[in-house]
Amino acid sequence: MSDPLHLSAILEDTARLLEALRAAPPLTHCITNTVVTGFTANVLLAVGAAPAMVDIVGEAGVFASVASGLLVNLGTPTPEQRAATLEAVGGASATGTPWVLDPVAIGVLPIRTDLARDLVGRRPTAVRGNASEILALAGLSAGGRGVDATDTTDAAAGAARLLAREHGSVVAVSGEVDLLTDGESEVRIANGTALLTRVTGGGCALGAVMAAFLGAAQGMDIPALHAVAAASVVYEIAAERAAETSEGPGTFAVALLDALAAISPADLADARVEVAALEAAR
Amino acid sequence: MSDPLHLSAILEDTARLLEALRAAPPLTHCITNTVVTGFTANVLLAVGAAPAMVDIVGEAGVFASVASGLLVNLGTPTPEQRAATLEAVGGASATGTPWVLDPVAIGVLPIRTDLARDLVGRRPTAVRGNASEILALAGLSAGGRGVDATDTTDAAAGAARLLAREHGSVVAVSGEVDLLTDGESEVRIANGTALLTRVTGGGCALGAVMAAFLGAAQGMDIPALHAVAAASVVYEIAAERAAETSEGPGTFAVALLDALAAISPADLADARVEVAALEAAR
Amino acid sequence: MSDPLHLSAILEDTARLLEALRAAPPLTHCITNTVVTGFTANVLLAVGAAPAMVDIVGEAGVFASVASGLLVNLGTPTPEQRAATLEAVGGASATGTPWVLDPVAIGVLPIRTDLARDLVGRRPTAVRGNASEILALAGLSAGGRGVDATDTTDAAAGAARLLAREHGSVVAVSGEVDLLTDGESEVRIANGTALLTRVTGGGCALGAVMAAFLGAAQGMDIPALHAVAAASVVYEIAAERAAETSEGPGTFAVALLDALAAISPADLADARVEVAALEAAR
Repeated sequence: MSDPLHLSAILEDTARLLEALRAAPPLTHCITNTVVTGFTANVLLAVGAAPAMVDIVGEAGVFASVASGLLVNLGTPTPEQRAATLEAVGGASATGTPWVLDPVAIGVLPIRTDLARDLVGRRPTAVRGNASEILALAGLSAGGRGVDATDTTDAAAGAARLLAREHGSVVAVSGEVDLLTDGESEVRIANGTALLTRVTGGGCALGAVMAAFLGAAQGMDIPALHAVAAASVVYEIAAERAAETSEGPGTFAVALLDALAAISPADLADARVEVAALEAAR
Repeated sequence: MSDPLHLSAILEDTARLLEALRAAPPLTHCITNTVVTGFTANVLLAVGAAPAMVDIVGEAGVFASVASGLLVNLGTPTPEQRAATLEAVGGASATGTPWVLDPVAIGVLPIRTDLARDLVGRRPTAVRGNASEILALAGLSAGGRGVDATDTTDAAAGAARLLAREHGSVVAVSGEVDLLTDGESEVRIANGTALLTRVTGGGCALGAVMAAFLGAAQGMDIPALHAVAAASVVYEIAAERAAETSEGPGTFAVALLDALAAISPADLADARVEVAALEAAR
Repeated sequence: MSDPLHLSAILEDTARLLEALRAAPPLTHCITNTVVTGFTANVLLAVGAAPAMVDIVGEAGVFASVASGLLVNLGTPTPEQRAATLEAVGGASATGTPWVLDPVAIGVLPIRTDLARDLVGRRPTAVRGNASEILALAGLSAGGRGVDATDTTDAAAGAARLLAREHGSVVAVSGEVDLLTDGESEVRIANGTALLTRVTGGGCALGAVMAAFLGAAQGMDIPALHAVAAASVVYEIAAERAAETSEGPGTFAVALLDALAAISPADLADARVEVAALEAAR
């Protein structure tokens, strides 16, 4: 059952983060796949962050150490990007830059699966994936058949908790209802729209927004779970606004950018969030 | 002169494929150029397919063997993509996954020209290109000066027939009127709009849609020529719908995605298709 | 103080170039970053140019020598792109193809900074960057913290003049007011909209348009400074038109493409340009 005090703390932190982000755009370092780079950068710019894609060896480490937040998305992991990713995670770890791992389509595909399992051991601040990806990351299934989840969010709740407790990460399982956990609490977010699954990068861009919110949260005494939840709530309420004025996936993707630029703390009244304490790990 | 019985079979198969695709989205493996990845994925999602870009060595072969269809587009063929392409085509050939070759801008550019000539020998299910690319692929001209055709569709009719008969492929020549052939029949499709040439990826995305339709056609006893024609007709009628509500190339590209998501068998009444038997090869 | 005769020559050349470009689309070779490839190609198509991204070793040199203009943008410089860039610049130099250098985010990031300093020594026809990038290129500061300028356009006026005189380049500093110089004259363009900074590729695409206009100018007896100014004026007036009908960054990016396709010499009445002679170098 939902904890009203914790819930109101999350929503207050969401409003604070949204304002902080607009006041001082967090430099958000993205190593992401070639399909969604442009859309991801536009989502970050729209919400108020400053995106930069730096994914080559010799620069990724330097940049991760000066960035506010880092996204590592494994959608099209060329050898150069794989090496740059390890360099960036090293830089982020050394300076305490929060970072998000998005293990796109792991399970069947061997190279990214091995890399994702290596990376999760380096204690990402957050992990975002669909249910199949989170199950595969925990070693509990072979993953989906591609980029789409073939498992439900609830089916991945145990895997999410396991990963969160083992690696000290916030784990976010995207789905019709998103499930987020830091191993101690579980947040469920029912905002969003099915149109997000009809646009490429609908999920990938959310991972980038999480990196931006984690970056903005630094020095604000806001728990990582709240920052990740804030990113999800803001993104998904904006998506709902966009869906209202869309005639299909094309106009939706455009309207989403407008809605992200326009969203304000007042819109958080539409949040459909629940939070509950988890039983302690045995 | 057009064969009315064959024509009605094509249009019936188009309606069946459109419904099949929406009922069970075909996993469509794309190895394509960095300019059009996002647009291509959005086109596939809009029409009802499930796109996945897997273009690294060590994963491309595995994925091609589980995918429903594969697109190989040579627009920006890095060394990694070239090696992944050969791996993917190997995987597709081993499991019978239909695949489409799009020999972008071959002719003047040596590396992709050599690769395209190698690939066509591996018997792609379909080849899609503009007239200059098809002529260059058949070794009958040096190709265009870049990505634009400098030859007419009719000028490439002989080259298309030659390639189709030699490699067992359906060859689709894009132009004001598209010309498709499997070496036995010739289909001409007069749908479409010039705005498709004002948007990057207008042709590349059609190649991906062909891979999706070929994937959906598996197990349905539909000839490859019909699946390729179906992809063209659906894509180009959607483009006509989009053009009606557009104010320029920007709004057109957005409206095209909406139109692809909305198109239904009823819209096929607007098809402007002719089909004729070819004389047997000498 | 502005020179009215020089100013009217610039605006006349702008109108001539816009018409020339629509009459014979200049083949515009782009080596650019993976974030903005699609948007850049769409901007070029909209304004009337023929874009082609050829960024692999073994093809980039051949293509630069047949292209009308070349853009080299250092936003995501993989090893393959770096080698292809040197090949392309060699090809362009050998045949006199005008080329534009966009030193994205140089300063803190070591690999692109070294490459940019090497490239500027090869005498690009034009250099486009924000104030921080131009200062860093001249060795006068460490650059911005990422892709955003942290310096004002006026602060980079000296650096721009220095680079222009040393390398024989037109140097364009993008900002609220753009500052362009060939070392002899200084052009200030006050057109544009802040929305260009809310869309990824807003600046990068302008570099590509400069390459297209320089390409169109060949054989027309139009100075490079005028061609670069023409690209800026056309792009930024189109951006103003787009801003008028936009509800946010999403609709703006779409409307910009429509506006670029629609802009005509009559729209140049809205140009807000000043030009002044510089004192001779000491």
